[in-house]
Amino acid sequence: MADFTDKLRPAEPQGPSILAQERAGSQVNVTALSQHLLSRNDFLNRQKRILAILEPLPIFCKKNQLNMARPDRYHLGLARAKALRRLSLKHGWDRDDYVMADYLMDEMGPYALQATMFLTSLREQCNDEQKAYWLPKAENWEIIGCYGQTELGHGSNVKGIECQAKWDPQTKEFIIHSPTITASKWWNGALGRTANHAIVVAQLLLPDSKTGKYRSYGPHQFIVQIRDMKTNRPLDGIVIGDIGPKYGYPGMDNGYMLFDHFRVPHAALLSKYSGVDPENGTYNKPENPAVVYGSLTFVRAQIIMHARLVLARAVTVAVRYLSIRRQFSDRDAKEPGAPEQAVLNYPTVQIRILPLLATTFALHYTGEAMYKLYWGTREQIEKTGDFSRLAEMHAASSGLKSLCTTLAADGIETCRRAMGGHGFGGGSGMIALNNEYLSKPTVEGDNWMITQQTAAYLIKRMGAVVDQPGLKPTDSVDEQFQDYLRNTRSYHTRASNLDIVGYPIELVRAFKQRASYFSYQAYQARVVEKKPWTGMMLQLHKLSRAHSESLLVSNFYDAVFADTASPPLDGATLDVLRLLFRLFALFTLDASASEFLLAKALTVDMLQHVAPAIQDLMAQVRPHAVALVDAWAIPDYVLESALGSYDGDVYNRLFHKAHKENPLNLLTFNPDWRSEEIVMGEGEENARTRLEALALGVTAKDHERAAGAVKPRL
Amino acid sequence: MADFTDKLRPAEPQGPSILAQERAGSQVNVTALSQHLLSRNDFLNRQKRILAILEPLPIFCKKNQLNMARPDRYHLGLARAKALRRLSLKHGWDRDDYVMADYLMDEMGPYALQATMFLTSLREQCNDEQKAYWLPKAENWEIIGCYGQTELGHGSNVKGIECQAKWDPQTKEFIIHSPTITASKWWNGALGRTANHAIVVAQLLLPDSKTGKYRSYGPHQFIVQIRDMKTNRPLDGIVIGDIGPKYGYPGMDNGYMLFDHFRVPHAALLSKYSGVDPENGTYNKPENPAVVYGSLTFVRAQIIMHARLVLARAVTVAVRYLSIRRQFSDRDAKEPGAPEQAVLNYPTVQIRILPLLATTFALHYTGEAMYKLYWGTREQIEKTGDFSRLAEMHAASSGLKSLCTTLAADGIETCRRAMGGHGFGGGSGMIALNNEYLSKPTVEGDNWMITQQTAAYLIKRMGAVVDQPGLKPTDSVDEQFQDYLRNTRSYHTRASNLDIVGYPIELVRAFKQRASYFSYQAYQARVVEKKPWTGMMLQLHKLSRAHSESLLVSNFYDAVFADTASPPLDGATLDVLRLLFRLFALFTLDASASEFLLAKALTVDMLQHVAPAIQDLMAQVRPHAVALVDAWAIPDYVLESALGSYDGDVYNRLFHKAHKENPLNLLTFNPDWRSEEIVMGEGEENARTRLEALALGVTAKDHERAAGAVKPRL
Repeated sequence: MADFTDKLRPAEPQGPSILAQERAGSQVNVTALSQHLLSRNDFLNRQKRILAILEPLPIFCKKNQLNMARPDRYHLGLARAKALRRLSLKHGWDRDDYVMADYLMDEMGPYALQATMFLTSLREQCNDEQKAYWLPKAENWEIIGCYGQTELGHGSNVKGIECQAKWDPQTKEFIIHSPTITASKWWNGALGRTANHAIVVAQLLLPDSKTGKYRSYGPHQFIVQIRDMKTNRPLDGIVIGDIGPKYGYPGMDNGYMLFDHFRVPHAALLSKYSGVDPENGTYNKPENPAVVYGSLTFVRAQIIMHARLVLARAVTVAVRYLSIRRQFSDRDAKEPGAPEQAVLNYPTVQIRILPLLATTFALHYTGEAMYKLYWGTREQIEKTGDFSRLAEMHAASSGLKSLCTTLAADGIETCRRAMGGHGFGGGSGMIALNNEYLSKPTVEGDNWMITQQTAAYLIKRMGAVVDQPGLKPTDSVDEQFQDYLRNTRSYHTRASNLDIVGYPIELVRAFKQRASYFSYQAYQARVVEKKPWTGMMLQLHKLSRAHSESLLVSNFYDAVFADTASPPLDGATLDVLRLLFRLFALFTLDASASEFLLAKALTVDMLQHVAPAIQDLMAQVRPHAVALVDAWAIPDYVLESALGSYDGDVYNRLFHKAHKENPLNLLTFNPDWRSEEIVMGEGEENARTRLEALALGVTAKDHERAAGAVKPRL
Repeated sequence: MADFTDKLRPAEPQGPSILAQERAGSQVNVTALSQHLLSRNDFLNRQKRILAILEPLPIFCKKNQLNMARPDRYHLGLARAKALRRLSLKHGWDRDDYVMADYLMDEMGPYALQATMFLTSLREQCNDEQKAYWLPKAENWEIIGCYGQTELGHGSNVKGIECQAKWDPQTKEFIIHSPTITASKWWNGALGRTANHAIVVAQLLLPDSKTGKYRSYGPHQFIVQIRDMKTNRPLDGIVIGDIGPKYGYPGMDNGYMLFDHFRVPHAALLSKYSGVDPENGTYNKPENPAVVYGSLTFVRAQIIMHARLVLARAVTVAVRYLSIRRQFSDRDAKEPGAPEQAVLNYPTVQIRILPLLATTFALHYTGEAMYKLYWGTREQIEKTGDFSRLAEMHAASSGLKSLCTTLAADGIETCRRAMGGHGFGGGSGMIALNNEYLSKPTVEGDNWMITQQTAAYLIKRMGAVVDQPGLKPTDSVDEQFQDYLRNTRSYHTRASNLDIVGYPIELVRAFKQRASYFSYQAYQARVVEKKPWTGMMLQLHKLSRAHSESLLVSNFYDAVFADTASPPLDGATLDVLRLLFRLFALFTLDASASEFLLAKALTVDMLQHVAPAIQDLMAQVRPHAVALVDAWAIPDYVLESALGSYDGDVYNRLFHKAHKENPLNLLTFNPDWRSEEIVMGEGEENARTRLEALALGVTAKDHERAAGAVKPRL
């Protein structure tokens, strides 16, 4: 396999020496900044420890993934899931170690539901008897579970699901049934080929004690064995399968499932909060649920922290590659043959990458703030029974989930496009990242829908503040609104005084002004003018975004200007973070400048200074870009990118990947159109038949063959 | 394979009846509008004719594509390319028929370069002798060609390519050589496994007649045989391969190629315009190239027309599915259990889809205008020798390519996300569309880079208009600028008078005002204040966008308000197109409202009316959405979408695709982590070994085996 390319090197200057120079040229203390960003939960040490275990194992090698057929990706996903489970026992991993391994492996696999939705549901919804029976089985992975809520016809609107669980008073069983095709469970992870048990969400149907007529008591959770424990075939009366390839997640078997009058015992209904009396079939109303600590806030803080790392990954690849890549000499260069410029030196590239670099930090500080709020609120509730901050936290988390996952999803693609041709290639490491993260704006609350929750809360608080001039503020939103109303008569003067370019705190004020203005407008429209909710949806979405951006800006400001950085940072590093704050806030403001103008948080005169200020900030951030992405400490194993590796050896890696690792290059083809032969030496009929079968895919005969193929395991 | 799901139907109301109602509810004359949009080049009839040939052939079946391994996608791509070539002979297709087949097949395959870059280069760059030798071979497909320009280290900056062609005066040959890894040809379509000939772009190195020292005369094109005609193996001294999986285009073998002092004869240099004297090795300077008709404008008009169809495809899927999909009842509904709303009724969904629907028409009319300009200019040049409009056309085409491909690429993803969970699934038909179209903002001129050309032209014209007050306008840009300068002293008054909500023509004026304002600012900065070009790049990009949006708005306005629609349209249909014009223009303005404010083309007071006007327009367009997408006449075979098929049978199609056509469902797996068995009945060692090998991909041993595997074809 040796050939003359072995001795060739990339043209000068080479990536590694460029990155060395970039690193030497910044005063950012990378180690300290890494600690500052990633000390929570011992992240950095854990990453190092787990990485050393995973990376050398062949089954976890990522380099061939883009070449594989989707069925093989699932096979591999299952093998990896099994291997991970065994490793966790061997090394005595705790839950955080396991989560880290999942993060590093960077592939959603068929065991992903076991420790999350499946176990969580069992823990939260089982009564004591059910817990005693099911928890040990699930915790020891004797059964493999999934969570069956979403259906073909219903996703976000859970109340609308069609799957039924009808109580049969004769046999004391529930009859689980799918009355339509749209009632099919759909999208449920691990269901397609893997799980033998499922939490099934179905409409609970009970007969009226007098008329005997059935009516629904709404969606309830049932635990159902769905496959035979020996053959892993679906039980009689159940049809299950994998829904097929998706935009991402090839290693996960998202599934569908239908029931044909399938009977489960009375004990299948998870009955911690509600139940059916087996004797007379009456419904026991749920008691008031136990203390809610706002676990949704915690989950959404995790989503934001995940978003920051995912975005940091894209920005890392972009910053390193675009520092190395050279393109065109300066148009105004005096001397002919002036050296080509690093692409990252062009403002048209900076404007796409550097604000996103700043965004990773903005997301970080808001994620941190949400964690603190969560733990603080929890403590407050436990100590004093004071739930007052819960609603604010919930409301904020919806808008922030929407905004932050949108920022990350869009940001990944912006980075990819900024890298030009190589960004489109498999060596970028951006393909799977992009394809998979694009699910996030949809899952766990569609990003356009959940913003209504944030807006509804803000309208409610604005109403309270307007109605009760002497109201003792219950949360920071109340304070902000009171401040807004106090100043509303003089806002013309106030707005024109906001020097957002000169003073960072004025940026915070401008964002609050805009959010308060939109809150007041929405309050007026809904409460005073009684406008229909649906007609207001665009306004509500804007309001949520304005509020969420204001939170990002405030949290970022507090973190880098309050001198309480923890762990502490040196002055030089902190100065760079302050540049990033101003860049993030000004860039975000500029993107919605007309809203700030409407809200009188900005004047057209001040607006003229914004674009030059952004360009100036980018020039100041540029020398620190490589150091700043280094601080995020994303391992090469996670980046899986020839363009973004720590060493900067871009072109050697790209070439090696193509020349040594591409299976297509092992075959020689016959390009002559007059022959049906495809691979050289392969007979004509052979090629044509095979490729036509491949194009047509699965046939009825294939299904027949498959039906008889599995031997039971004893 | 029969089971109880066979008798199930989706819940009511079902897709087909919904779409029938939608179609009945619109006054748009779909047939007439289709003719209006798609009569150029007999598009509709041609589509029907070629579709009838392709669709029934198994090799062109698309339904299994997302399941296939990348190497198989190339195999299939090659087989399809061969089949297409044979069909074209059998049915006597002309070039337009062939292009139509390519469009319908919707897959870039390994013959794609033959009739485009390869043949075009030969036709345009060969001298007569070369033509006589090469054209028959290429036109009869006796040789398969590709175009080797881009390198690993250089894309957009062609002058910087490293591959060398050094003249050897002794042997009268050129020595083609790759001095570095970055000199490797890279990305070149059809090169990886297919082509046996290549146009190779290399720096022409000639010795100084006195000193003998070599210097470069810049990049030149060479025709080079690169593979053996019998074995299809690379010739000695050349290393070739496929660069591996990319974001899209799995059926295309984008390749790399390096030369090790590979010798080609003197005749390899394509010598229509320049050449090397074989006797003394001197360079013949290129003559003035023959009349240029602005073929770049023609190519870019095609890009825009392609963008409109691609965007129309995404919008078609979105509009049909979102009309059918139901989600949530109206929050203000009085009666409990009110029916769920069509998702497309929500303003938060409309705002993402309906402006894009309007954009398909905006792109169409600008594409048409560019074709007309191209043919008109060509005629003018031929008749009168007047080249004056050529520069305007060129400049406009750069900015428009950038804007229109960005609109389409972003629009596809916006549609996909608006479809929620099912938009992420393989049944959406959006996966390949998205992945492949995302190359367009990069290829044929990076969208952020080429806008400099548009801006440079506008600065130049503004300079001319400023310097020569009595200038006879050479093009419409001059007129616009003269108008702007005449009014510049009174623009305050004028701006506040622009009633963009009430009068469509005022929208056209607002866009011109903004473009002129930015042109003047850029002229001031560059020409008067002598600012560095690089520092102005963001400003230049904005200018280009402002000008391009102004062109889209003007062309759309002219088409639907000038009463010259061709073929003509009835009043009801034209009224809907006028709504679309206003929606497109107001939505586009709103997205950059702050720029219009800076340009005094808009006041903050007027801005307050824009969002309500947009929402009102969307409500008026909504009843016609299905009819409007029908008019684009995208066949189901192209949509390849369960969500977007003409009949609206969404859920049956989704379910069928999963339940009957997913190869993963033919296998049964062992989910137990204690066993290494993966597929049931498959031994442990077997599974582990196979999957580890799959994960690791290609080994050195594989390369060795492959090296001896091919039998020569005789």
